Amino acid sequence: MTTPFTTQASAARTAARELATLPRGRKDAALHAMADALAAAEQDVLAANRLDVEAAREAGTADAMVDRLTLTGERIAGMVQGLRDLAALADPVGDVLRGFTTAAGVRITQVRVPFGVVGIIYEARPNVTADAAGICLKSGNAALLRGSSSALNSNRAVVAALRTGLEGQGLNPDAVCLVEGGREVTGEMMTARGLVDVLIPRGGAGLINAVVNGSTVPVIETGTGNCHLFVDVDADQDMALQIILNAKTQRPSVCNALETLLVHEQIAEQFVPRVMSALNGAGVTVHGDESFTSVAPGALPARVDEFDAEYLSLDLAARLVAGVDEAIEHIRAHSSGHSETIITTNLATANRFTAEVDAAAVLVNASSRFVDGGEFGFGAEIGISTQKLHARGPMALPEMTSSKYIVVGDGHIRA
Amino acid sequence: MTTPFTTQASAARTAARELATLPRGRKDAALHAMADALAAAEQDVLAANRLDVEAAREAGTADAMVDRLTLTGERIAGMVQGLRDLAALADPVGDVLRGFTTAAGVRITQVRVPFGVVGIIYEARPNVTADAAGICLKSGNAALLRGSSSALNSNRAVVAALRTGLEGQGLNPDAVCLVEGGREVTGEMMTARGLVDVLIPRGGAGLINAVVNGSTVPVIETGTGNCHLFVDVDADQDMALQIILNAKTQRPSVCNALETLLVHEQIAEQFVPRVMSALNGAGVTVHGDESFTSVAPGALPARVDEFDAEYLSLDLAARLVAGVDEAIEHIRAHSSGHSETIITTNLATANRFTAEVDAAAVLVNASSRFVDGGEFGFGAEIGISTQKLHARGPMALPEMTSSKYIVVGDGHIRA
Repeated sequence: MTTPFTTQASAARTAARELATLPRGRKDAALHAMADALAAAEQDVLAANRLDVEAAREAGTADAMVDRLTLTGERIAGMVQGLRDLAALADPVGDVLRGFTTAAGVRITQVRVPFGVVGIIYEARPNVTADAAGICLKSGNAALLRGSSSALNSNRAVVAALRTGLEGQGLNPDAVCLVEGGREVTGEMMTARGLVDVLIPRGGAGLINAVVNGSTVPVIETGTGNCHLFVDVDADQDMALQIILNAKTQRPSVCNALETLLVHEQIAEQFVPRVMSALNGAGVTVHGDESFTSVAPGALPARVDEFDAEYLSLDLAARLVAGVDEAIEHIRAHSSGHSETIITTNLATANRFTAEVDAAAVLVNASSRFVDGGEFGFGAEIGISTQKLHARGPMALPEMTSSKYIVVGDGHIRA
Repeated sequence: MTTPFTTQASAARTAARELATLPRGRKDAALHAMADALAAAEQDVLAANRLDVEAAREAGTADAMVDRLTLTGERIAGMVQGLRDLAALADPVGDVLRGFTTAAGVRITQVRVPFGVVGIIYEARPNVTADAAGICLKSGNAALLRGSSSALNSNRAVVAALRTGLEGQGLNPDAVCLVEGGREVTGEMMTARGLVDVLIPRGGAGLINAVVNGSTVPVIETGTGNCHLFVDVDADQDMALQIILNAKTQRPSVCNALETLLVHEQIAEQFVPRVMSALNGAGVTVHGDESFTSVAPGALPARVDEFDAEYLSLDLAARLVAGVDEAIEHIRAHSSGHSETIITTNLATANRFTAEVDAAAVLVNASSRFVDGGEFGFGAEIGISTQKLHARGPMALPEMTSSKYIVVGDGHIRA
């Protein structure tokens, strides 16, 4: 059945074929052209964004969400620079992953190829529109961008500029498509096997679960980070304080921020008062279980379910544990598999923690805020995968590709 | 809610934790012990299999399916040897995929880790039970094996032997579990997020589609191979004949067998009579479109839908095309993305075909029968992925793993 969505997705597939074999030089030129066009359209984009922001305010949207929706000259400049930065990154397409000759003498090369058409489903953050389009383009994929209806005017203006940039370089503008329409269109997108190769939801746990549960197209899950930090009996306690403060307060609203503190009970009397004082001084509210509040009178009692969700705010759950075993057990039961940290000077304890904790990233004596494509040195990041298939951890350009085996013989047949 | 399935899956998760950090030596000893126990249980397994085979015959099951269900001493010996062969393969777990130090001085290592619990959903082939259990064990994963109810007695006997082998080595037998019960249990398994890490269906297109459409657990699709071969105007026609015969007739029932022949129209008058004679001589029935039957009177007319499905038999669809463009266009429209072949001596044509055809494997002058984990030199294969996420093409032990970033600092905090 042909619908507006299938027509658009088919057009994106046609564009994807052209992108798949486009040399890096032309993709980089296109990224600069997209950046130029977006910079030139700044006033149009700001005007369109004002419509969305006004509507959101009238609808009583929370301030934090209105802030994410709001574009400024500075934010647009950031989007423009993001596109230019992508042009400077290596092209993953065509990378040879393996090459060998089989026992029969057939020559085999495994090379990176684009996915084809990537669907991004995201919330009311118009900056994602340019970021995702750029990452898809550089990795040779066409992008079907399904933003929130509350950012529709902004997204239309951004996508129009990006498509102008593509056309100016003689490329098919359907490499970047904004998917419009009601909720039923999201459903079409999630079940468009054969038209959409991969779906990447970007947003909160609710959005991600809805996409995972509703999709037959393969999904890469990103983002939910219920991150723990365990202060071992053998920790450098000054180091622990610094890392806890950094992981919790440097940017509390993001997925790699600290959400639960686990303290070895043997150091509780000494360490808990210090950490409470430091956290309270930084404006953090601590929610402890009974074990924790008994040594930290300033902590609020935590409900049981507070150990299972992200606060994404200046709040922190806390409990005492009997040792690394109980810490690992707690993390197993409550982790979202994003980033888990131990602070210890004991090598054997560190090794047990890194071997037995099952997460995209396991950290020793470092802040979980480092688990990020930019900090890893990968450049642009489409998200942080918290699943185990395909990619786990920060997803950059190589993670936006698949591979293909090229098999060359000289008349070889199988015996 | 606790059910027999969730209890079993939780037990498998516990076993998976132990497997995740088990050194290679203990896994290899376990594989040999499983092999020994299976060999020792030969008579029990054959007796159990006879019950399944008799029931299948009474139910009027097709001969080909009864043949797949039937175990013999030789087939059991093959299963035993398969387990021993796995012990000889390298252990992918712990492989360092990347290692680097970030700009901030944090040291990062990306290492291979097991998925955890792998669910295999398959048809009435009891040999898959031992193969899949062995591949999962060697890659450090617990296996939840969901075989066909028509092979239940056989599978019970095989799994009992494998678990005896595990216990003899002091390992948790729940590393290998047979999932029993009605259809609703398959549904539970497909939606057991958090209990099952990956599902791999092995079987026909119907089974695979049912799993893809019904699952919220991530799925790796394997197997459907609607494979094409294009004979270019610049082909070595003798080579083309040999490769066509090999790809079609060496084992017609498998996914890498040839299903559709595309012939360049400029060589049709010369080549088609030769290929028809060779194919007819090998017992192959050719189903051509009008373009093909007009030059091949011995060919039957093909229905349009015959270009979209696997025959898996000594049948072959055929048509003429105007050149490599039309060949690529046909493959795009009908391919299942498994293995696509060109026969040509023209380098530019070969390059266009390998660059533009989107499939797990693209072959030049070689039989698609080579697209196989064993032929590639990978050893044991769990299947051939025809999807783009995680793995594409033959899936061996490395493809049965995920990865984890280990991040080590010395008190590093993010600025």
